[in-house]
Amino acid sequence: MSQTSPRLRVGLIGTGFMGKAHALAFALAPRVFQLPAEIELATVADIDEAAAQHAATAYGFDRATTNWRDIIDAPSIDIVSVTTPNKLHKDMSLAAIAAGKHVYCEKPLAPTAADASEMTAAAETAGIKTQVGFNYLCNPLFRLARDMIKAGEIGEVRTYRGLHAEDYMTDARAPYTFRHDTAGGGAFADLGSHTLATAEYLLGPIEQILGDCVTKIGERPDGAGGTKRVEVDDVGRALLRFASGATGTVEGNWVATGRRMQHDFEVYGSTGALVFHGERLNELLLYKNSDGQGQQGFRRILAGPDHPPYGDFCVAPGHQLGFNDLKAIEVAGFVLAIAGLADEPFNFRSGLHIQKMVELTHRSSREGTWQNVEN
Amino acid sequence: MSQTSPRLRVGLIGTGFMGKAHALAFALAPRVFQLPAEIELATVADIDEAAAQHAATAYGFDRATTNWRDIIDAPSIDIVSVTTPNKLHKDMSLAAIAAGKHVYCEKPLAPTAADASEMTAAAETAGIKTQVGFNYLCNPLFRLARDMIKAGEIGEVRTYRGLHAEDYMTDARAPYTFRHDTAGGGAFADLGSHTLATAEYLLGPIEQILGDCVTKIGERPDGAGGTKRVEVDDVGRALLRFASGATGTVEGNWVATGRRMQHDFEVYGSTGALVFHGERLNELLLYKNSDGQGQQGFRRILAGPDHPPYGDFCVAPGHQLGFNDLKAIEVAGFVLAIAGLADEPFNFRSGLHIQKMVELTHRSSREGTWQNVEN
Amino acid sequence: MSQTSPRLRVGLIGTGFMGKAHALAFALAPRVFQLPAEIELATVADIDEAAAQHAATAYGFDRATTNWRDIIDAPSIDIVSVTTPNKLHKDMSLAAIAAGKHVYCEKPLAPTAADASEMTAAAETAGIKTQVGFNYLCNPLFRLARDMIKAGEIGEVRTYRGLHAEDYMTDARAPYTFRHDTAGGGAFADLGSHTLATAEYLLGPIEQILGDCVTKIGERPDGAGGTKRVEVDDVGRALLRFASGATGTVEGNWVATGRRMQHDFEVYGSTGALVFHGERLNELLLYKNSDGQGQQGFRRILAGPDHPPYGDFCVAPGHQLGFNDLKAIEVAGFVLAIAGLADEPFNFRSGLHIQKMVELTHRSSREGTWQNVEN
Amino acid sequence: MSQTSPRLRVGLIGTGFMGKAHALAFALAPRVFQLPAEIELATVADIDEAAAQHAATAYGFDRATTNWRDIIDAPSIDIVSVTTPNKLHKDMSLAAIAAGKHVYCEKPLAPTAADASEMTAAAETAGIKTQVGFNYLCNPLFRLARDMIKAGEIGEVRTYRGLHAEDYMTDARAPYTFRHDTAGGGAFADLGSHTLATAEYLLGPIEQILGDCVTKIGERPDGAGGTKRVEVDDVGRALLRFASGATGTVEGNWVATGRRMQHDFEVYGSTGALVFHGERLNELLLYKNSDGQGQQGFRRILAGPDHPPYGDFCVAPGHQLGFNDLKAIEVAGFVLAIAGLADEPFNFRSGLHIQKMVELTHRSSREGTWQNVEN
Repeated sequence: MSQTSPRLRVGLIGTGFMGKAHALAFALAPRVFQLPAEIELATVADIDEAAAQHAATAYGFDRATTNWRDIIDAPSIDIVSVTTPNKLHKDMSLAAIAAGKHVYCEKPLAPTAADASEMTAAAETAGIKTQVGFNYLCNPLFRLARDMIKAGEIGEVRTYRGLHAEDYMTDARAPYTFRHDTAGGGAFADLGSHTLATAEYLLGPIEQILGDCVTKIGERPDGAGGTKRVEVDDVGRALLRFASGATGTVEGNWVATGRRMQHDFEVYGSTGALVFHGERLNELLLYKNSDGQGQQGFRRILAGPDHPPYGDFCVAPGHQLGFNDLKAIEVAGFVLAIAGLADEPFNFRSGLHIQKMVELTHRSSREGTWQNVEN
Repeated sequence: MSQTSPRLRVGLIGTGFMGKAHALAFALAPRVFQLPAEIELATVADIDEAAAQHAATAYGFDRATTNWRDIIDAPSIDIVSVTTPNKLHKDMSLAAIAAGKHVYCEKPLAPTAADASEMTAAAETAGIKTQVGFNYLCNPLFRLARDMIKAGEIGEVRTYRGLHAEDYMTDARAPYTFRHDTAGGGAFADLGSHTLATAEYLLGPIEQILGDCVTKIGERPDGAGGTKRVEVDDVGRALLRFASGATGTVEGNWVATGRRMQHDFEVYGSTGALVFHGERLNELLLYKNSDGQGQQGFRRILAGPDHPPYGDFCVAPGHQLGFNDLKAIEVAGFVLAIAGLADEPFNFRSGLHIQKMVELTHRSSREGTWQNVEN
Repeated sequence: MSQTSPRLRVGLIGTGFMGKAHALAFALAPRVFQLPAEIELATVADIDEAAAQHAATAYGFDRATTNWRDIIDAPSIDIVSVTTPNKLHKDMSLAAIAAGKHVYCEKPLAPTAADASEMTAAAETAGIKTQVGFNYLCNPLFRLARDMIKAGEIGEVRTYRGLHAEDYMTDARAPYTFRHDTAGGGAFADLGSHTLATAEYLLGPIEQILGDCVTKIGERPDGAGGTKRVEVDDVGRALLRFASGATGTVEGNWVATGRRMQHDFEVYGSTGALVFHGERLNELLLYKNSDGQGQQGFRRILAGPDHPPYGDFCVAPGHQLGFNDLKAIEVAGFVLAIAGLADEPFNFRSGLHIQKMVELTHRSSREGTWQNVEN
Repeated sequence: MSQTSPRLRVGLIGTGFMGKAHALAFALAPRVFQLPAEIELATVADIDEAAAQHAATAYGFDRATTNWRDIIDAPSIDIVSVTTPNKLHKDMSLAAIAAGKHVYCEKPLAPTAADASEMTAAAETAGIKTQVGFNYLCNPLFRLARDMIKAGEIGEVRTYRGLHAEDYMTDARAPYTFRHDTAGGGAFADLGSHTLATAEYLLGPIEQILGDCVTKIGERPDGAGGTKRVEVDDVGRALLRFASGATGTVEGNWVATGRRMQHDFEVYGSTGALVFHGERLNELLLYKNSDGQGQQGFRRILAGPDHPPYGDFCVAPGHQLGFNDLKAIEVAGFVLAIAGLADEPFNFRSGLHIQKMVELTHRSSREGTWQNVEN
């Protein structure tokens, strides 16, 4: 990258789990990849002043603020990262879009599809670039899986299973939080949304959904000595029909005791199969009928330089990528899109589409019937 | 077992895959276990005379016949094993029952619930003992799992996943067989039935089912140069609601390329979890929240003498049981029931119940709505 | 098998762990396989009269005795199974050989190579057939592995790792037993012997050994309130050089806490590799460089009908064999050898050879130097 | 970190595999951790000017140079990272030490123990801080394993197995490189060194070694149409005796076809066991006898915030760290040591010690006898 390469100045809103992940990704991406633009960390915002100050110093932002609108108002800032709770995504994104900035927003895009739709329309009208943080799609082995499916290496895809199960809501004594709000909350919105994104990434459009979303822990401590009724689902499942003719299931579950990152998929084709377990993000299992008789079996492929962009991180196979590396890949894809060198990997319209399917699953669950996905 | 212990004389109908499995099990069971009765192999029947003769010699039956009614007509025969194709189960079982014999019938009990119901009524009226071959339930680790669930070792069970996937129908060029008959055929009847049996074995009664059964290979060679339309499902899935309040999914799939015996389950409780993979029938995975902080993880329990009746086969842990051993356990349970020392492990009424749920799943799939299980 | 096929009458000495395993195997083998002879269970001997009586009834022997010489003296008995403690193997085998009977002796063949040598000479002079119970070699996947190696499917074999680790001696409070006798005892003699047998089965002759045998639990309760000094090893390891040019290691370990059946091997060739874990006896892992770039990985091959003689037990893949099935394969091989239709699978000379290598490993350990294997 | 925290200015020599890993680690460490000093990237050196320029821009160094002595001569530089081929480590490190700079040198520290000893003496005399890149020790699960061992959670450690096997030298047609030089080269020096470091990290000092180092590929293309004789080992193994009384084995192997990162260990104690597979760096297997009877098994512990410093990277468990994260942990430890807040995690003396053990293993292999480790 020459001295004359363009600069992209970043404003980050939020410094929690995802705020830090974004900050690390913005630091890693230009060092790992040869990006078509320089990244400068301009301003970080957090309502907690100490957090903002710490983030600025630690992550190398030029300045800190407790007012996220300072980022919107800074003419020199090109990209706004939104990593705050869901209900704030809309206002922040719309403000950033109005100011002509590209927006990198964590998932889910918004509490409702209506909000997400408004955000998407604004972004498309403004012509800015957007990115929603469905980071698991950035796994090099997902790309490998998709490429193999597209190349017909497992034949015609027939059946699919997708999961995203964790256990962070297992304890019924854990207090009510924003994640339990009916607007945008629940296991299927939070985790099931990932399963839908992965399913379509691999198999293409979903046409029909039949959902079943269940609340198991009906009330939680309200933090004030009482309890509060929880209406969002602890587990959401859906039967799926894909446009390709394949059928399958997905499940989002946050009470799956013992599971930390069960973002799994199983794809069965007419001549082979692909299996992935999210707790082993550097492994993809491949089965091929064409392997010799008596010698067939699921192969454990370990991520390596043969699986771009792994090699940008490490020239040796089997050394393994981590979660933060996936975020760096996400940032790199967004920067390429901003530079006009590639499509947006997963833009607001994609995020809106997921949101619609989540709501459709909720509706299907309430009505007990199949629903058609609007594509 | 003293010289005066009662004798149970066995007649076996069918000498194919399951016929041989029964023959081996009748040989193994009395050697492995201390049974309350002696087992004598009286007559084996097969429409193929050479097969019948070979079976008699190889398995140690006193005589062979090509006419299964010879078994029915033999007053000295106490138990009739029915291992023929499904559509023959009913007539053979009813004849055996009418002759006052105990009946050990392979699954599925009959092509239709109506048939199974007739068989069940006859058996109960006659007061004979019955057994249906849901052999996976005989796994010592299934008993361990159920006992742990009942003892509350994983807390309140919340969510469940069950599978039975194989790949023997993957090849679209494989010819049409009796397994493709609409009466009793299809992946969900053949394999999904196992998932329902396992689910109820572990979690108790299912109350509601929403099914989705899909035919992927719509026609197959008819063996005469033409093709024949296939109407049974290649994959059947069901959303489940249990009486306990737990919810879950099951899938029966015979086009799961690469899967040989994916009879799996995952049970998530409020304080722990249990996971089983059928391709590793000697392993049960157990997770407990009560393990020390930072030391929690799924434990891989290997079957051993701590898990009855493993120790009857082998006093050393980790040496592993095989499929035929499970059938020997099934026989032993049936003999105990005949001797009046235990309940029938899985009788015709149990088999009928599974059959009803399979049909309910089919109906649910056609109608796209939830169905109530009659209990 | 026709009515005129020869009969082999069996006498079994010992009814413990291995006695039962032999009895089950003699019952299973003729039912599973089409053997060239009928097997009749003649006499079972145990010094405990009740045990002998129970075994006769349960396993179907014609008679029971407390005097093993009754078996030797019975002219009609053709095969003698010796499943007693090691120190008794020699006298029993020599007596059987002298009586012209074929001998199936559990491993280790004898406490010392000198004894084993005497037994081998006697057997060869007498021209009877012998079998030593190295049952793990009967695994169908071992045959597959060896065939692939021989066919050059993993190229030139370069390095090897073998293990047999269990944990039955982990508890230092467990009492002194015959397994702790210096003559023939110790982890390397008991378990390491299996690793040597497997190594040579797969890679051919071992030429040089450098051993290290270590006693970790120096004394054990003597059962009379005192303690007894233990001199045999709890873990024995050896560096190996094969005639083929390959090199490797083996370890026998009976204090490997948590391991039930770690009879593992890893074979690395110039173009591929094979890996086996004994706790998953139905799985073989295969790696081939020739798999496509970016698609290489260890394949998990599940045992099935493609791997003889699995199909004799079950026509469906993935249903799994158990330990007792391996013993039935062992019996079948011995019967074929007796009938003159095949070589003895693992005769006294093979057992003697293992015994010599065990002693060589002990000597190497004492002297701290490489030893040449006499071939 | 306040504005007044000290600054550490870094000079990096080499921009290959490890050069990039260092650069990423220097970027990540201060963002992930709250370090007691700021890190500034001053100068990067590479003999290839384009590589140096690219590195400077991409990684954020103030300047680039083709002359590594520019880094030595820069008074403002505090830390020198040496990531060049082994034979250059000594001169560069000595120059840096002479200039009063802290040195972070990749492993192996030097081609010979004599060189490493000279480097260590110089560093200790100068009083600067040193770090050698044995990055696998930085895995949070290694710390967990060591802490559990120290706390007696698996009882008295009895036996040990260590591996580091990869397959990058499997192809005999791959050309001769600096890794094949007798001074410092070979599989045991390159990979076996890691196994020794890990073994001592977990179990404490090794007292005696008996090695066996074998060359399998005796000549390689010299890049000029001919071949060159290779004298270094392709696989090196060692029998070990630890000061604690434990015994074990290690193996370094670069012709282990199919293995990408088999940096494994198995530790067997009197009451439990620990097992780690390097290709799954976020998993540690733990076995405890104290788990309930019939419920014992190896637990798969997934790395999470309970395992410092995982939580600094990600607050959610199971999201996984990658190789580059381990390097960031290594940098953080070094910075703490420089700040006087902790001991050097793995300094030149530690690296020298490993080097001595490697040479001792080579000597033992030549002489075929046990060697005492000088401690």
